[in-house]
Amino acid sequence: MSGRLAVIGVGAVGDSVIELAEEYGHTVTAVADSSSAAIDPDGLDPETVRSRKADTGVVGDSDPDDALDAEYDILVEATPTTLGDAEPGFSHVAHALNRDKHAVLANKGPVAERYGDLRDLEAESEGEIRFEATVGGAIPILSTIADFGASHITAARGVLNGTANFILSRMAAEGLDYDHVLAEAQDLGVAEADPTFDVEGIDAALKFVILSNVLADGEAEFTLDDATVEGITDIPGTALDLAAEDGRTIRLIGEATPEGVSVAPRLVPDDGPLSVTGTLNIVQLETTHAGRLNISGRGAGGPETATAVLSDASRLADD
Amino acid sequence: MSGRLAVIGVGAVGDSVIELAEEYGHTVTAVADSSSAAIDPDGLDPETVRSRKADTGVVGDSDPDDALDAEYDILVEATPTTLGDAEPGFSHVAHALNRDKHAVLANKGPVAERYGDLRDLEAESEGEIRFEATVGGAIPILSTIADFGASHITAARGVLNGTANFILSRMAAEGLDYDHVLAEAQDLGVAEADPTFDVEGIDAALKFVILSNVLADGEAEFTLDDATVEGITDIPGTALDLAAEDGRTIRLIGEATPEGVSVAPRLVPDDGPLSVTGTLNIVQLETTHAGRLNISGRGAGGPETATAVLSDASRLADD
Repeated sequence: MSGRLAVIGVGAVGDSVIELAEEYGHTVTAVADSSSAAIDPDGLDPETVRSRKADTGVVGDSDPDDALDAEYDILVEATPTTLGDAEPGFSHVAHALNRDKHAVLANKGPVAERYGDLRDLEAESEGEIRFEATVGGAIPILSTIADFGASHITAARGVLNGTANFILSRMAAEGLDYDHVLAEAQDLGVAEADPTFDVEGIDAALKFVILSNVLADGEAEFTLDDATVEGITDIPGTALDLAAEDGRTIRLIGEATPEGVSVAPRLVPDDGPLSVTGTLNIVQLETTHAGRLNISGRGAGGPETATAVLSDASRLADD
Repeated sequence: MSGRLAVIGVGAVGDSVIELAEEYGHTVTAVADSSSAAIDPDGLDPETVRSRKADTGVVGDSDPDDALDAEYDILVEATPTTLGDAEPGFSHVAHALNRDKHAVLANKGPVAERYGDLRDLEAESEGEIRFEATVGGAIPILSTIADFGASHITAARGVLNGTANFILSRMAAEGLDYDHVLAEAQDLGVAEADPTFDVEGIDAALKFVILSNVLADGEAEFTLDDATVEGITDIPGTALDLAAEDGRTIRLIGEATPEGVSVAPRLVPDDGPLSVTGTLNIVQLETTHAGRLNISGRGAGGPETATAVLSDASRLADD
């Protein structure tokens, strides 16, 4: 149940993992940001690390690389998602697996862009990887797929980007155009200064690529390059008005199957499960014998995503 | 991954468990209905057992009690739910645990009415119990609670009886009264000839009692007697009309917390997640750090419920 965690990356998710680890029965023995590390094999005091980071911008006096070689059972990879070679996240996870340690990823890059490489490293290791936090934050999507068995899920479909969903919800509700709502979302902190990843569908596509990799279960491997991706930047407000007259609305819908990945704006019924509002996420799983499951909730946020990381850590510590 | 199953009870769920077991990697070594049993330590042929049951009403030539002593890893308790002492289901599970075997329950009685007794027997056994199928059919409610940890879920709320939900949906959509829609539901096979369990809220209450037992995690124990239960038989069609004028509808909503259980008709927003239609079920879980999760899907049905049984069996076979 209880594991020693090395937390690499201290953004919103890493910070919440440090804050909540003890409540989930874990001890944090190492923390690294991009320029420093704090290490204590007997367990760091979470509040000391967090307040030092908040006050000074660094977590400690050690070299960040030393955190990778510290004493821990589970490495938590929470650095920002990068594409292509998915570095430095990929190497952090590889380092843990090479040491026969477990790794839990909140970073989508390695699982979306180098899934086969990761599974190969895992096969050679006593350690295992888990990555519930990379798909839908707090929503238990990957664990539900694992429970059913990937071979009993034929497709996963839904809304996995809260920023794009917030913008489409506001455009429909207020009759405003994209640029206006984007500016509002940026003021509220829902959209980043550079919203490209969210509004072009890339963030959603990475999550559905991960889902396809899981559903294909080794029979095929996908990266972002394999996904058909269309964002929401070209949707005129009039399109949402026309949809509304027909009892429908527009959502940025992704679909993952064992054969491929697509993300694009789609018309969905106004009162159907896919028309979640605001920053909520939803995934529909099509099962072979149990019909369709809908799972919705908060798909992002520091504490929400940290609960997924810590549940993964608990599973690994139990093994 | 692979386990030998003894399936006790061959109603819709037991029959589907036998049909689908092989697809989930399991072997059925014993099957018992109320008057007979079929036993083969090398594995029964599912279609032979099922067609004999369909054609002759019995599954084999052996005594039903012999199935309890057959070679198996996991006993599947799929006899009808009974209240009070929850027999004979309770004794079937007790027999398996006393033999240090696992048990998976689709029968709500033992987990709702004698939860403490079951956990006491489990504590003395090498075997474990699982019972995802007793709450919401195919919907992974208990495994989601286990993933989060019961201490991180403060309440479970929702619709867990498809028959009552079908009746309320039809009353609202067609402006018909209760008696008329009940007769229609009975014609369609959605309601049983004696619908008391469903329409009086007892079936839903048993499921929420089980959820409270899980959420209380040993700190308290509940039975049906502890639940406040009100059914749908006294709701006039006019109440649904009035609700509709206000953008709302009526659903039979249960709530389970670590402190108690209630089931009653409630006004819910027409376009909100709790107003699922037809025989669908939904559960909302309130989490400590990740907001509210909504999980909906098919809460009943032979194959749907069998998938929950077989996923539980796979988890136990992995241990």
